[in-house]
Formats: sequence, C-alpha cells, structure tokens
Amino acid sequence: MGELRYPEVIEEVKSIIWPKPLKLFTAGPVACFPEVLEAMKFQQFSHRSAEYRELHKDTTLRLAEFLEARKATVLLIPASGTGFMEASIRNAITPGGKVLVTIIGAFGKRYREVVETNGRKAVVLEKKPGEPVLPEELDDALKKNPDVEAVTITYNETSTGVLNPLRELAKVAKEHEKLVFVDAVSAMGAADIKVDEWGLDLVFASSQKAFGVPPGLAMAAVSEEVFERAKKIPDRGWYFDLLRLRKYLEQQWSTPSTPPIPQIIGLNVVLRIIEKMGGKEKWLQMYSERAEKIRKGVLDLGLELFATPGYYSPTITVVKTPPGIKGVEVYEAMRKRGFEIAKGYGPVKEYTFRIGHMGYITDEDIKELFDNLREVIEELKKKA
Amino acid sequence: MGELRYPEVIEEVKSIIWPKPLKLFTAGPVACFPEVLEAMKFQQFSHRSAEYRELHKDTTLRLAEFLEARKATVLLIPASGTGFMEASIRNAITPGGKVLVTIIGAFGKRYREVVETNGRKAVVLEKKPGEPVLPEELDDALKKNPDVEAVTITYNETSTGVLNPLRELAKVAKEHEKLVFVDAVSAMGAADIKVDEWGLDLVFASSQKAFGVPPGLAMAAVSEEVFERAKKIPDRGWYFDLLRLRKYLEQQWSTPSTPPIPQIIGLNVVLRIIEKMGGKEKWLQMYSERAEKIRKGVLDLGLELFATPGYYSPTITVVKTPPGIKGVEVYEAMRKRGFEIAKGYGPVKEYTFRIGHMGYITDEDIKELFDNLREVIEELKKKA
Repeated sequence: MGELRYPEVIEEVKSIIWPKPLKLFTAGPVACFPEVLEAMKFQQFSHRSAEYRELHKDTTLRLAEFLEARKATVLLIPASGTGFMEASIRNAITPGGKVLVTIIGAFGKRYREVVETNGRKAVVLEKKPGEPVLPEELDDALKKNPDVEAVTITYNETSTGVLNPLRELAKVAKEHEKLVFVDAVSAMGAADIKVDEWGLDLVFASSQKAFGVPPGLAMAAVSEEVFERAKKIPDRGWYFDLLRLRKYLEQQWSTPSTPPIPQIIGLNVVLRIIEKMGGKEKWLQMYSERAEKIRKGVLDLGLELFATPGYYSPTITVVKTPPGIKGVEVYEAMRKRGFEIAKGYGPVKEYTFRIGHMGYITDEDIKELFDNLREVIEELKKKA
Repeated sequence: MGELRYPEVIEEVKSIIWPKPLKLFTAGPVACFPEVLEAMKFQQFSHRSAEYRELHKDTTLRLAEFLEARKATVLLIPASGTGFMEASIRNAITPGGKVLVTIIGAFGKRYREVVETNGRKAVVLEKKPGEPVLPEELDDALKKNPDVEAVTITYNETSTGVLNPLRELAKVAKEHEKLVFVDAVSAMGAADIKVDEWGLDLVFASSQKAFGVPPGLAMAAVSEEVFERAKKIPDRGWYFDLLRLRKYLEQQWSTPSTPPIPQIIGLNVVLRIIEKMGGKEKWLQMYSERAEKIRKGVLDLGLELFATPGYYSPTITVVKTPPGIKGVEVYEAMRKRGFEIAKGYGPVKEYTFRIGHMGYITDEDIKELFDNLREVIEELKKKA
C-alpha cells in the first residue's frame, strides 16, 4: 500500500475528530461496524473497471433482495438521502403539479420544502409531534384532494421517534392510485420494507443510518411507473435524472458520474454480514430487540417516551425530560461522561433528548449508557 | 474499535475489487495516498457535533487558501463534481436564459447537457478534439452572443488531455461581464487556480482526482455575485441550493444534509500533507514534473501525444496508438501486466489510450509502466 511518509498528519486529524473516546447513540452518522471500517481503507480504483461493475452489481442485487424489490430498480448514487427527495419530485411530478406531503416532524417539513423549491405545490397533512399519520386520515385527505399526483411519507421520523404505519398508508394511497414516495432514511435496514408488495414507488435511504456505513451514499428502489412518468416530465436535470441513472445501471452496472466507492464497499460488507447472521429477519429482529431494550431502560429510569404508544421507532427513542430539565443539559452531561446521544430536534427540541440505536452498539454499551443516564438524571433533578 | 466478528466478509469483498494487484494510472478514481487510506477507517460521528464543525471548518479554510479564494466561499458537498455543474445552472442562470458552453471534449458536452436538461439554452463554441479554446475565439463568440449570462470552461479535458488557458479565458469573459463557471474536476490540485484574482465565479472539482482522495465529495469556490444572482432565481431546488449551503456553512460549519465524512477527513489529510511538503507551489511542481516525465516516456517510445503542444494536461496524457493498433488493445495488454491505464474516451476512443498521473504514484511505478508499455507496443506492432 505504500509507506506512510507523513504519519503525524493522521494523528493531527485524529486529534480534531476524536479528541476523546465517545460511545455513539447518535441519530446518524452512527458508529459503523468494525468490518465496514476495516474495508474502508481499501485502495480505490476506476468506476469504469470490470471490478467496479461487479461490486456495484453485487451490492445492488443484495440490496434489492433485502428490500424485496424484484420489479423495482435499485439505484445507488453519490448523495445524501435528500438527493432522492429531489429526484422523486423532479422526475415524477408535473411542473406546477400537486403532492400530498404528510408531516409528522422535521423531515416531513423538509419534503415540503423540496416540493416547493422545485416548482411544485404541496398539500399538507400535518400531525402533532409524536403522532403518526393514520390510514383513515390519509384516506380523508386524498378524498379532499383528488388532484394530487403523489403522497410523501416519512417512514421513521428521526425528530420525534415515530414509525409511521407505512404498509397501511401505502395501501390507502394505492387505492387512490397515487404515487407513493417514502423517506426511509432512518428506517431502511431496521424496519421492514417490501417494495413491490407494498406498492412503494420510490423509497430511499442513506448509508449512515441503520446499515452502519459512513455517510455519502444514497440508495433507493424505484418503480417502473416512476420511470414511465419521468419520460414525460421536462427539465428533470442531469444529476438526479432517474432515466439516466437507470441507463447506466443497465448498460454497465455503474453510475453516470463517479460513485462513492468506499461507502458502496461498506454497504456490500454489511449486506454480507446480514447474510451470515441468518438473513433479513434475524437482522431486523436484532434491531427490534435492541430498541425494546432501550425503551425498557428509559422507562426503568422513570422517564417517559415521546412517541405515541404502538408507533415506536426501531432506530431512535425520543425521551421527555423531567420537569425543569432541558434536553441539552442531558446531552451535555452525557457527553462529559463519554456518551454522544442526540439533542432534541425541531419544535420539541427543548424538552426532549434522543437515544439513537443504529449501527455498531453492543449490549455492554447499552448497560453503560443507562448506568450513566441514571446518575445524570439524578444530578440534574437535584439542580432543577 | 470492536472485534471483527465476520473477518471473512472483508476477504470476500477484497476478492471482488482487488482480485489481483494493479498499479493505477487511471483517469480517476485514482490511487489514494497511504495516509488518506489509513484515515479512512476512523470511526464515524455526528455531523452536528463540535468535532465535525471543527473538521469542516479546518478543511474549508485550508482548501480556500490553496485555491486563493479569500472573497469567494468554499463549499464541500455530498456529490460528484457534476453536482456543481447542476448547481451553477440552477442557481445563477435565469430559467430559459442562455449560456455559452465551450466544448473541447466529453466533459464540455456534459455541461451542455446539464444546461439543456435544466431548462436553459446552450450556445456552443466547440473545438476539434485535442485543441484548446483560444482567448480570441472566446472573445469572438461573446461578441456574437452578447445575451449569454455565463461562460462554461472545462479547465482540463480528461478525454483529450488538454489544459485550457483558463486564466486568459476568464479574463476575456470578465471583459464581457459574464459569469465564469469552471469544471476543474481533473485539474484542481494539479493545475494552478487563483479564484479571486482570475475572476472565477464557480469553480468545482471532485475528491477522487488530483487530491488523491476516494470519490464521493465535491468541492467548489463560489463568488459573491453567484449568491446575489441566486436570490433572484426561482426553483433552485433544495439539494444544490447554494444559498442554503452557504447558510449552513455560516451558521454551523456544516451542510444541510449529511456530508461524506470519510472523504472530508481524506481531503483534510491531503491538505496537511501539502503543507508539510512546503505548500501549494511545491505540490504543483510535483505534478508538473511528474507530467513531464510521463510525456517524455511516451515520446521516448516513439509514440505521439494527442493534445496540441503548449496545452498539455498536468493530470492525464492522451497518447495516439501506432497505425493498426487500437487503444483498447493497449489497455487490455497493460492490464494483463498489472497496470490499469485508462481507455480512450469519446470520439477519439478508438485510436488513443490515456495515462492518468494523479494521486499516489511513485517514480518506480512510472519506470515500470514504461518498461512494460515498451514491450506491449512492440508486441502489438508485430501483430498489427
């Protein structure tokens, strides 16, 4: 690999990014699996080489299997997940056309911004923070707005810790013959997704969440109907043009512009780990058990969960702070003890904090987290 | 960092991407510096943390210094370089407005596509493959097309190995009071760029070229005038909205959506190496000497260079094949010997091959390259 002529440089950068060890319970980027990090240091190579095509093909097919996307096309692109929000609107919605944007927190609001900044109109169905969208509410909104072309759904809202009932919502949208766009950024890899069976038209995520890979890669499954609509939509742009992306995939198992190779390697590593662990169900079960353990730990401390019961997120738990204690105080105190949890986010920022449970987290880490959180809450209560 | 539970997975992936060792003389992604690869395996962390802000700030300021961008704003985003092509058009050109696109090869053609797929009009100044755009030609084109809002210039055309006289071209464009957009993807880091002094309005590149970092990160320097124009342009979208990107930079030294942290770490490492080597001039001199050595090697084999003399690229050398020999034959024969050069690209594909000289390449590698290339050419001549 070549000798290190300037090893001191690596230490200098380390002193910036890891001045002290922290156990990560973040909302993402999350701690990556050790195998992923080990594979991140492979030497790079041309994305037009035979080796790259094989890597891209293998990763795409493994992800398609995980998402149960046999009819839909799986795309891997150099972007954050939000890139596919923009792609969904520019490729499949008529300029000036309407989209029903369901909002249960900060990321639904982002989808609204993406719709509006791309010259389309948003019709909004917004719930109170902590609540999911219910199928009958969606049905009602679609009856009142029969002219929308698509429905957007945040599968897992990272800001409130709520998992929407995606399967049921998609069913309603399909009964109204609407396209279904799903922001699954903090859900994919931890909450089940069956692309074809559930009728999802574009469901996207990022590498740095439940797959435990560094950020820089966005992935999506895209239905045939979206590609058909795209053919009639003008000014789709170049970078997120889904037809161009599909063409390169079909012709050479690659991307129009250079892909983030290390992250694709990382995703490939994780998809292989999932296979070794016994497949998708076992993997999702790991996430489900971990989430349950985190929620139990919170309740055992006498704290309350923010999300509506029955709609708890499998990837992030939002906790109400006791009276007189601010979320950021908990965050800061835990950081001093070597734990990076996540601050509250959006309108509920002040009186919540968040515990992310994606990526590489051991049972020992969780035990230590709660041992420390117990003491922190007690200390802050005394001061409050 | 945690134990490796599935070490075999890393070997499986390695067998796909590195079935045998290859010395890289690619057009990019190129071989990364060993220090960069070593730093790629750092554990990830939140892009909203204090540590990330410090990393982003330090990297941005170092790159701004390297580009001599004191007035312009340096942005780092999760995308390939082409993302900034799209950003330049959507943010600074009136919908339906005209852009003078200068084309000297495949990447100028891409800029034209980006202009047109984003609902703007391209006026084209196209040169024959191998030729640069000359200042008087640009002046003439601008006199004939006074209504264009901007000029696009490919600084280094990877498909033909030509370096455009950027400084002189920008001077002409500024005399006509046009915005100057520069695709510096395969130039930045090897050919000099003085953003403010040369009057460049948006100059962009990617991590995987002359900086020798893995792909997944795009960087640009953007002038105040572009931001001012953006305020009046509708439908800029969300993902590449330069005003949103600047806002996040100013408010928190971060990005609106999650950045590709490993590549930003990698760029930081390289910018520190440049500093240790004695600064920008020494670094550019390394590239210039390496390019000269490659060209001399080609000429010593009795082969001809494709680019017009005086406009040779400092990052990639395009070589004409002898009569009867195809470029792809040279590529394949070199690959069998453990060297990954680049195939010809675009209209000159058939009778050229390319030697990239970016990233981590030693003098020993170059010597071996030519020892093998000599034998390959002799063998192919016998067969031809």
